[in-house]
Amino acid sequence: MQTEHTAVRRDRLRTQLAGLEVDAALITRLVNVRYLTGFTGSNAALIVYADGTDVFCTDGRYRTQASAQVPDLERVIERNCARTLAERLHAEKVPRIGYESHTVTVDGLDELRTAAPNATLTSAQQAVEGQRAVKDEGEIDLLREACAIADRALADLIERDGIGAGRSELEVGRELDGLMLQRGAEERSFETIVASGPNSAVPHHRPTARTLERGDFVKLDFGARHGGHHSDMTRTFVLGQPGDWQREVYAVVLAAQRLGREALRVGADVRDVDAAARNHVKAAGYGDQFSHGLGHGVGLEIHEAPTVSYLGAGTLAERMTLTVEPGVYLEGRGGVRIEDTLVVRADGPELLTRTSKDLTVL
Amino acid sequence: MQTEHTAVRRDRLRTQLAGLEVDAALITRLVNVRYLTGFTGSNAALIVYADGTDVFCTDGRYRTQASAQVPDLERVIERNCARTLAERLHAEKVPRIGYESHTVTVDGLDELRTAAPNATLTSAQQAVEGQRAVKDEGEIDLLREACAIADRALADLIERDGIGAGRSELEVGRELDGLMLQRGAEERSFETIVASGPNSAVPHHRPTARTLERGDFVKLDFGARHGGHHSDMTRTFVLGQPGDWQREVYAVVLAAQRLGREALRVGADVRDVDAAARNHVKAAGYGDQFSHGLGHGVGLEIHEAPTVSYLGAGTLAERMTLTVEPGVYLEGRGGVRIEDTLVVRADGPELLTRTSKDLTVL
Repeated sequence: MQTEHTAVRRDRLRTQLAGLEVDAALITRLVNVRYLTGFTGSNAALIVYADGTDVFCTDGRYRTQASAQVPDLERVIERNCARTLAERLHAEKVPRIGYESHTVTVDGLDELRTAAPNATLTSAQQAVEGQRAVKDEGEIDLLREACAIADRALADLIERDGIGAGRSELEVGRELDGLMLQRGAEERSFETIVASGPNSAVPHHRPTARTLERGDFVKLDFGARHGGHHSDMTRTFVLGQPGDWQREVYAVVLAAQRLGREALRVGADVRDVDAAARNHVKAAGYGDQFSHGLGHGVGLEIHEAPTVSYLGAGTLAERMTLTVEPGVYLEGRGGVRIEDTLVVRADGPELLTRTSKDLTVL
Repeated sequence: MQTEHTAVRRDRLRTQLAGLEVDAALITRLVNVRYLTGFTGSNAALIVYADGTDVFCTDGRYRTQASAQVPDLERVIERNCARTLAERLHAEKVPRIGYESHTVTVDGLDELRTAAPNATLTSAQQAVEGQRAVKDEGEIDLLREACAIADRALADLIERDGIGAGRSELEVGRELDGLMLQRGAEERSFETIVASGPNSAVPHHRPTARTLERGDFVKLDFGARHGGHHSDMTRTFVLGQPGDWQREVYAVVLAAQRLGREALRVGADVRDVDAAARNHVKAAGYGDQFSHGLGHGVGLEIHEAPTVSYLGAGTLAERMTLTVEPGVYLEGRGGVRIEDTLVVRADGPELLTRTSKDLTVL
């Protein structure tokens, strides 16, 4: 992470302080501290001041790492970063402090109040998450590479006949995980889903010892983390010749997914994007079997703003990175989900997960 | 997870309700819900009532899984579990509700207050974490197996000369991760630490492209997750003939670690356990280079109660599961940490991580 990028991000947050009616923002949510500073350790906090004299805190384990990753900020070394920075704000007599009420716990707020008893503590209204929904090109580059790693790992798995009858879901998942690490993932994005046969009808199935059989749908939902950014992709295969019902369900989901992707336009309402895919599924008679939203933002977190769903709100902006993942799940028989990670662009979405979505018979 | 075990756990929590001055506890911390119900999904909440009519909530993705894992409780299917259960408590006119103030956010408490406007909401004082510090034999069996998986993976790695000069920290870490998965880990317990040469002086180093060299200390800190339980082990090796300073530091840490293990007695104060190891390190002149506490509880979380440190408080009880992990870190040169996972037993600690701690030259 280059410090000029994080400085730009902090400056963007700084411009929000007046609107939040605070003099400084105390950022304690770790992923937000990372976004605003580049720091990747497991304990840190940050003050963003209206006047730009931002201060970073981490503990002694990370002294060297913090010097390297956050060279541009004053660094305080203390274990309890939130309290330490609140005490500093108190000593500086900062009257109004914004804090992250969506992640600070009730006990945590008590601690902040004790440390800064004279200050007014006000919710920062998820200001950083709002910023993070729109990526810069550096973040998109990381996400593009994360998606490429996942694509390559899946290609490796298919090439070595890794998704075959007789193997267990667990074996397939572990092999795919290993291939992602070999291909350079720093982590899996989340616990890999391998769901075969009737299990493929469970949207978030955890791999079991069930053995893949001919005639199964096999649904793989997985991702690679690279530079802290999470790819997210689902592909559903058929083992052996697909039945008519499998061809039908697959075609419905594939068409819905394409409609969803095509609806990713700057200014589109997230509910309309969801509806673009969902209406097709409904018209095909499977509306009740599409039991979740269409997609979600993805980046430093596997699920982040915006939510692309009939329950969501807001419109899409350029450089948002999103999943589009309709599914149809027929209990006891099987299900299909097809998911890509994409970038909203002025001239139409950029596809980051590039593995074929044609019905693939293994 | 057998339901009789989780029922026992809920009954133990139930006995705490009167002392907390509440009529029901609204458990929203996921790991605590898992502990009390056996449910392993990613969204759930639970009410434990004084009268025993406990209610579980998860969302539609987990309907089938919840039927299988939580057959013994009434199950509500809703996405926002905390709010849904708070509304139920409101409808039932439950006057006093305990909630998890250490994990419920400020915004989350606002939502609970809106859902149950007439109730008194009181902190549950980490009641479930307190219970969880003392394991039952079923949990210890899971942790024992998690530790055995990690032992076997490390043995595999050594047998295939995986920790050799010329390999990068990242390669070694990925191979060890893969071996843990092959040996049956459902996950790594945490991001594997491979720290070589001067990097071994960084207590929580993340693996880099640095190549292992002859003369290096190589510190591996890693673990396997099994049945939700996390093993945690550190071993430090030397590549090629160790220098005198390496033999000395290793011997100091090894002796301190043994003293720490031997201090794991029922009723021991955690500060005394820490001191048993630390005093030896201090006497050897390395007190300032042992910059962290001696250990921590481990189980459904990689770090949980109790904290075994000069900053900790409390005494050990039978069937607590703990790490003992002293370290000495010489900046710019290298460091040694040796860590085991153990069970406190009436007749002395049971060692779960069984890989040799003799100075091993690779």
